[in-house]
Amino acid sequence: MIKVAILGGSGYTAVELIKILLRHPEAEIVAVASRQEGTLTIAELHPSLTNRIDLRCEPFDADKLVARGVQCAFGCLPHGVSMTTLPALLERGIRVIDLSADYRLRDPNVYAQWYGASHGDLAHLAQAVYGLPEIYGDEIASAHLIANPGCYPQTAILGLAPLVAGKHIDLRSIIVDSKSGVSGAGRTPKLNTHFPECNESVSAYSVGTHRHTPEIEQALTDVAGEPVEVIFTPHLMPMDRGIFSTIYAVPSRPFSEKQLTELYQEYYAKAPFVRLRSSLPATKDSVGSNFLDLCMRVVRGRVVVLAAEDNLVRGASGVAVQNFNRMYGFDERTGLL
Amino acid sequence: MIKVAILGGSGYTAVELIKILLRHPEAEIVAVASRQEGTLTIAELHPSLTNRIDLRCEPFDADKLVARGVQCAFGCLPHGVSMTTLPALLERGIRVIDLSADYRLRDPNVYAQWYGASHGDLAHLAQAVYGLPEIYGDEIASAHLIANPGCYPQTAILGLAPLVAGKHIDLRSIIVDSKSGVSGAGRTPKLNTHFPECNESVSAYSVGTHRHTPEIEQALTDVAGEPVEVIFTPHLMPMDRGIFSTIYAVPSRPFSEKQLTELYQEYYAKAPFVRLRSSLPATKDSVGSNFLDLCMRVVRGRVVVLAAEDNLVRGASGVAVQNFNRMYGFDERTGLL
Amino acid sequence: MIKVAILGGSGYTAVELIKILLRHPEAEIVAVASRQEGTLTIAELHPSLTNRIDLRCEPFDADKLVARGVQCAFGCLPHGVSMTTLPALLERGIRVIDLSADYRLRDPNVYAQWYGASHGDLAHLAQAVYGLPEIYGDEIASAHLIANPGCYPQTAILGLAPLVAGKHIDLRSIIVDSKSGVSGAGRTPKLNTHFPECNESVSAYSVGTHRHTPEIEQALTDVAGEPVEVIFTPHLMPMDRGIFSTIYAVPSRPFSEKQLTELYQEYYAKAPFVRLRSSLPATKDSVGSNFLDLCMRVVRGRVVVLAAEDNLVRGASGVAVQNFNRMYGFDERTGLL
Amino acid sequence: MIKVAILGGSGYTAVELIKILLRHPEAEIVAVASRQEGTLTIAELHPSLTNRIDLRCEPFDADKLVARGVQCAFGCLPHGVSMTTLPALLERGIRVIDLSADYRLRDPNVYAQWYGASHGDLAHLAQAVYGLPEIYGDEIASAHLIANPGCYPQTAILGLAPLVAGKHIDLRSIIVDSKSGVSGAGRTPKLNTHFPECNESVSAYSVGTHRHTPEIEQALTDVAGEPVEVIFTPHLMPMDRGIFSTIYAVPSRPFSEKQLTELYQEYYAKAPFVRLRSSLPATKDSVGSNFLDLCMRVVRGRVVVLAAEDNLVRGASGVAVQNFNRMYGFDERTGLL
Repeated sequence: MIKVAILGGSGYTAVELIKILLRHPEAEIVAVASRQEGTLTIAELHPSLTNRIDLRCEPFDADKLVARGVQCAFGCLPHGVSMTTLPALLERGIRVIDLSADYRLRDPNVYAQWYGASHGDLAHLAQAVYGLPEIYGDEIASAHLIANPGCYPQTAILGLAPLVAGKHIDLRSIIVDSKSGVSGAGRTPKLNTHFPECNESVSAYSVGTHRHTPEIEQALTDVAGEPVEVIFTPHLMPMDRGIFSTIYAVPSRPFSEKQLTELYQEYYAKAPFVRLRSSLPATKDSVGSNFLDLCMRVVRGRVVVLAAEDNLVRGASGVAVQNFNRMYGFDERTGLL
Repeated sequence: MIKVAILGGSGYTAVELIKILLRHPEAEIVAVASRQEGTLTIAELHPSLTNRIDLRCEPFDADKLVARGVQCAFGCLPHGVSMTTLPALLERGIRVIDLSADYRLRDPNVYAQWYGASHGDLAHLAQAVYGLPEIYGDEIASAHLIANPGCYPQTAILGLAPLVAGKHIDLRSIIVDSKSGVSGAGRTPKLNTHFPECNESVSAYSVGTHRHTPEIEQALTDVAGEPVEVIFTPHLMPMDRGIFSTIYAVPSRPFSEKQLTELYQEYYAKAPFVRLRSSLPATKDSVGSNFLDLCMRVVRGRVVVLAAEDNLVRGASGVAVQNFNRMYGFDERTGLL
Repeated sequence: MIKVAILGGSGYTAVELIKILLRHPEAEIVAVASRQEGTLTIAELHPSLTNRIDLRCEPFDADKLVARGVQCAFGCLPHGVSMTTLPALLERGIRVIDLSADYRLRDPNVYAQWYGASHGDLAHLAQAVYGLPEIYGDEIASAHLIANPGCYPQTAILGLAPLVAGKHIDLRSIIVDSKSGVSGAGRTPKLNTHFPECNESVSAYSVGTHRHTPEIEQALTDVAGEPVEVIFTPHLMPMDRGIFSTIYAVPSRPFSEKQLTELYQEYYAKAPFVRLRSSLPATKDSVGSNFLDLCMRVVRGRVVVLAAEDNLVRGASGVAVQNFNRMYGFDERTGLL
Repeated sequence: MIKVAILGGSGYTAVELIKILLRHPEAEIVAVASRQEGTLTIAELHPSLTNRIDLRCEPFDADKLVARGVQCAFGCLPHGVSMTTLPALLERGIRVIDLSADYRLRDPNVYAQWYGASHGDLAHLAQAVYGLPEIYGDEIASAHLIANPGCYPQTAILGLAPLVAGKHIDLRSIIVDSKSGVSGAGRTPKLNTHFPECNESVSAYSVGTHRHTPEIEQALTDVAGEPVEVIFTPHLMPMDRGIFSTIYAVPSRPFSEKQLTELYQEYYAKAPFVRLRSSLPATKDSVGSNFLDLCMRVVRGRVVVLAAEDNLVRGASGVAVQNFNRMYGFDERTGLL
């Protein structure tokens, strides 16, 4: 039984993580730290957890977490806050799975360019492992600091990895048109996520400027072994959860759908959470699960990949537990089915 | 052509009002005053009005409005702000239709009890006419200050008026169970109206304490000529617009549905915006219109009235224009069909 | 490990039941019978189950189920079909949990009155146990045929049981105003559940005629020991799941909210799935779980009980597994947390 | 005052058309013909029209329509039915605006290829004018048969016309990724538009095979004067109305956003219903109106055009009235603001 702590308990990834961990036979939540919630009970913060967990929020105190035997901490903090909070844990030997964006971009210059501030923890940045198990599985097992991947990037990276690995597509022809539910914007009320504003409406946002762009490119460049560039357009959908990415690329040579299927089957032969679908997916098929659904089509010679996932489970807290399982040698699926 | 001004331009009732007035052949919007929006164009504030209206927000200045020939002002301000802003207009001879709650409750003690503060404009409170045309139509024509009715109260008052007018029900047996879309909560983002919180969810709020309770009782008491008491329970529905009220009462004597229908037909014979429905209404039938739909049933001897309306049109800006039409002698339906 | 079969695999209760049973450590699904789906795989029928269960639909054959060692069958069939299908299993010694309405009403005359047809299996009707564990827990353990309770009735019965048990309310003053998500209407497409018809709309239906009325009354009459009568009004909400019931009753003597709380705490002291809430519940708090949330208020001397649940879990498949657990001596919560 | 008839009264385009025409000062609806609805009143068919229109459905009879003075008929019939119904009107001198797809594709071979049947009315097909006023405005004025454009195609054609007119983009590089509300699928209940199936879900459909593809290409080829090819991917969104198209193209030479804006401003200088937006549009901005909103961006050298409209107004019934206005010499905006 691994004792775990959750840092940042008030958001959607935290409540999802707690629900998953409550079902996990090898994890015990011993602390939930929160900056702003005082000593509210978890049930007061998240009524859906009433009668499920008997803990109160507490201020963050690294020494106390050590004293209570915490071996692994999940960071559900905003970006910028993670990099000032998590070092205290790492220095005390606690392994960390960080759900923020702080440790995802290896190059601090790229971080500075997209996040508008210089990185504040270069030492740990250099050690961080990007926690996408289907691509970086070997490094995850021994990692001390996992940079848990972004929700959108997983659909794009896993949707394209088999194609870029074999250089089967023009690496500069990629368009990722993504559609996300509103929970991806977090739990802080803003005008654009106020119900009467975003309900019954579809809109694009951050066109050409979304911070998940360099994250997608970094991973695909790793897979390809040479630079990959993407056009990434996120859209806001009137629903709670789910991401649907429609991915377009120009193949290097003619492909049949059968060939695509075989390529993906081979690439994901050992990936229990990637489901190759012959029928077109809907986000509803994967919501509530850690599955990422992929479907490949050829349209007028162009490759079209359709990728769907639950942004809070597969896109955040589920893959975090998948990483946790690999870090501690449990079956990757433990607590996730 | 009547020149009108709108005070408080940033909310949902304002944008709805502008859309209705742009179609009104006898009204011209000459100013939109707003406290917080500086000199934004109306289209910047409400993108749906792009290319529809060539005005900028401006600070409130009563003298300037007079100078521009404003004859009638619509107040779309928060309660509390209305009563400190509108007197300056009334004193300058501008007639006012106030969409806030400030002038609805005649008794300042009742106001203080439910709003937790003493009323700040007793002089005008005494002159205000409650703007529910189907009940107070005669007084509206000559009013200088209209207290435009609340969204919930209209469903309850019009749903019950024929019954309480004839004392056909026990005046203390009334239960009003109301369901509203989220736009009724206004445009200021809060946690309970944040999309992922209220989407896909139904909840009750302000049980036993909602401020529309005394407003319903005041009007029904007027109609009955003796005290009426209601239990009023509002609920939040995952939709933009629409109110559905299910109203229960114990009849004084056995009623058939046919008798109910005749009673209501007679009572609303001259009310073009009250639609008596033989089939059960859905809020979708009246959304976007100024109609209030009513359907009467008898269940195990109890009277059940089902009332539906658009909370922003019939419940606010539409009925405001209906009042405007009566104040200036236009056909009640002008601009509203 | 108990071998179970599911009869009627195409609907929402079936897919929910399969998901719960896949997590249940003591149940093994060995067959899914379906009348209309030929030999489709379960994943073809329900894409969300892709890679989760390796079974095909099969025609119903009682002898085959016996041969495969099925000990317990869950009936997810339409009412009317259950009573012609399930006897073959009962006669072969297979215990049955029937999610249809066929065996819920003990009096065949009441059944005939509300369902418009005479009952076709009086022999088993006489043996059926109404599967509401918090009320009929003792009989459930030894039952061969469980009539799994309806979704609406559970909110009304559990919301009122402590009050009617002690005759704390006027047994003829009860009003149950219920709001349900659309999945309660089943998976067969109809105009009133077509997305553009029911989305963004609230409506009442079956006013005074809904078949759950006698089911509520039968159970509450059992609890009270004398006749209970309710006015029950169901409404359709634009959301997938969740039922919210607002229940009104006239107390026999004045009650404080504190007294109500104590009454309910005592009554439900051993009910792990009834959560007494001090704050007003939202359906979202219980969706996805087997919890039924209750909150009690006193408004102008009237008792108002607010009850919320997931109509597919607590309202159908979850409580079915809760019954299964009691029938086979497992902890009531097994597989449900 | 032009007397008009509506053929096919039961669907969403019909009810929208009736609402627009009821506000139109120069049109009078004298008949609504329907194949399946017998002599239901329009209000029985569409409760939202209660007290708005005093007509009953009637069987289609071309001679009767002539006798009643009908000058113009709007066809709201399914494709395939239009081409067998409308000739009788055209032969009697009634002008027709057909909202179906039957007369949109000029080449009967292309029709046969995409619709899987040979065209049944080649004579009138040859005379039909594609009713997109911003492109084919001159021909519309004198047309006897208007093929009203599809909902998706308008976003793609108007979103790209300025670029293809000047050959500013590679005519084979175009990707149109479109997102539509569910009303676009019509009013006939099916499993994929059943509320609990498509609510809270995003999915792609008809990938590479949607029949609007050749319609987009035909119009853009007209504009360009040489063949244009598009990859078109439609998606279903959980909302009633609205289409959002995200359009990608490779420019022939580097473009700034300022240059794009100037190009579009010039092209649409006389198009009152095309709104060029500097901020990113949301479908909610145009829902309920006849506006088509466009916003242009340059991302990594690629042109990205964002186009939004109401699929039932601008996408169908609104543009039909815009065509009607042009056919009869009214201001294009009559009845549409």
